[in-house]
Amino acid sequence: MERTPPHPDVSEFDLQQVLEALVDPVRRSIVTQLDAADGADIACGAFDINVSKSTATHHFKVLREAGLIRQHYAGTSRMNTLRRTDMDQAFPGLLDALTPHGRDAG
Amino acid sequence: MERTPPHPDVSEFDLQQVLEALVDPVRRSIVTQLDAADGADIACGAFDINVSKSTATHHFKVLREAGLIRQHYAGTSRMNTLRRTDMDQAFPGLLDALTPHGRDAG
Repeated sequence: MERTPPHPDVSEFDLQQVLEALVDPVRRSIVTQLDAADGADIACGAFDINVSKSTATHHFKVLREAGLIRQHYAGTSRMNTLRRTDMDQAFPGLLDALTPHGRDAG
Repeated sequence: MERTPPHPDVSEFDLQQVLEALVDPVRRSIVTQLDAADGADIACGAFDINVSKSTATHHFKVLREAGLIRQHYAGTSRMNTLRRTDMDQAFPGLLDALTPHGRDAG
């Protein structure tokens, strides 16, 4: 039984799709919170975002399909990690430019 | 007679507004073409974009209001330059990450 949703390979990343994901402030907040977690995974329910559960689910799906996050199940929780290395490889500097954490480090 | 349209100061640049400007592929193409011009100005009619004149005018307005381009008249032509220094100051690395020219240089 495969419970991991599909993820694009780095070679499939598309700048237009990534920007459409990142233009939404809630999705950018999710990315920023993951970036601040320094590689740790965060459960979907543990983010500081003020949207309904179904809206949040949609946002996570958009981020996953764009290649920005990786999702996996841990028991009944869906966990999320930032695909920073993959994004940095595909679009160097983009996440650094968009996340306060990246800007501080840079 | 003031013929220069209003431009935001760097201190007024807003990341959300900049991303909304850059998420459009035609507007990103305008930015990329200006970036490749290395500081030279380009008349509105001289860009390689396949849109109507009124649509193009809208795109230039969005870019100008976000702070991405500076516009001025030269005779009857409206000329455009990329506000690269201002953008690099406000959002370091963003244009580099989004323009092939920036990526090559980096």
